[in-house]
Amino acid sequence: MRVLLATRNAGKVDELRQILAEAAPHVELVGLDAVDEYPETPETELTFAGNALLKARDGVKHTGLPTIADDSGIAVDALNGMPGVLSARWAGSKKDDAANNALLLDQLSDVPDELRTGQFVCAAVIVFPDGRDIVVHGEMPGRVIREPRGANGFGYDPLFVPDGFDLTSAEITAEQKNAISHRGKAFRELATKI
Amino acid sequence: MRVLLATRNAGKVDELRQILAEAAPHVELVGLDAVDEYPETPETELTFAGNALLKARDGVKHTGLPTIADDSGIAVDALNGMPGVLSARWAGSKKDDAANNALLLDQLSDVPDELRTGQFVCAAVIVFPDGRDIVVHGEMPGRVIREPRGANGFGYDPLFVPDGFDLTSAEITAEQKNAISHRGKAFRELATKI
Repeated sequence: MRVLLATRNAGKVDELRQILAEAAPHVELVGLDAVDEYPETPETELTFAGNALLKARDGVKHTGLPTIADDSGIAVDALNGMPGVLSARWAGSKKDDAANNALLLDQLSDVPDELRTGQFVCAAVIVFPDGRDIVVHGEMPGRVIREPRGANGFGYDPLFVPDGFDLTSAEITAEQKNAISHRGKAFRELATKI
Repeated sequence: MRVLLATRNAGKVDELRQILAEAAPHVELVGLDAVDEYPETPETELTFAGNALLKARDGVKHTGLPTIADDSGIAVDALNGMPGVLSARWAGSKKDDAANNALLLDQLSDVPDELRTGQFVCAAVIVFPDGRDIVVHGEMPGRVIREPRGANGFGYDPLFVPDGFDLTSAEITAEQKNAISHRGKAFRELATKI
């Protein structure tokens, strides 16, 4: 079965390809680089699953293939679960990771250590040409520290220490991160259901 | 009975003085300007009531008088109730109302009109020298528009159209606003309980 992964992130394609090779070897993954003139999907929903479904439905519409998509971000308890779906543009749509990290640290500056909990969350979905869909979630719980540490990963990784670790998710290796990450968990669960 | 209002905002003192004159004429309100060397209270709680109680307890400790305090902000539904207690420093602790308004508009740029609901919320409290306290809340529901309008009020008023109005809370008069505002409602309810 050929399945589209509706993302332009080559790292995600590699990661999911590895997971599927074990869990669902009958699936052949197609990346967006193999699709001509693929349109950008606006992420207008208020939930990760809502945005992932938008992207996957666009994939089905454009290619006719079953399509996998994901949406993820960081949900900080002291901010009632925000930045959430706005994680990538928390400091504004024209700002970068550094600005997002700086704003989050500033907003949490008065929040004591024991209340700086949160989790990275990923919704992964597959939509089939007949309209059926499967939605799963993965989480990586941990806490937000007070200064960025580490150069791996991206986004809020330098600010986040996963439960069970003393290092941030930007200080552990990619293998360590994939084993515990929200996206790794969600993709592995989705793979078992395809 | 002499009661301290723990705020440096002269407008709040006037507003509460007017409300108390009707609802609790036996109360004589004292402003912070009448108190020497009054310390700043850090607002470190995650709720409006928590911060208002911090401020009122500091007032009792410093003056021995029953002390009224309040904390308020805007709770936007699409942001899970944030900016909330961070309303005054949403864009960062060194930023101003204009930066806060610009960031909120940017974060909500993809949120459709019917989901741009929210409310201004005020927690008003009184703490007595024996440690007893009374906590009340007032709300002003409405919606966040896409561009600032009006020069009255402060904070997020130019972005907020209260339910039942076509004008923003920065376009209506101070009298109209006091009649419907979160702070007016909370102060009036508190006055009836003193």
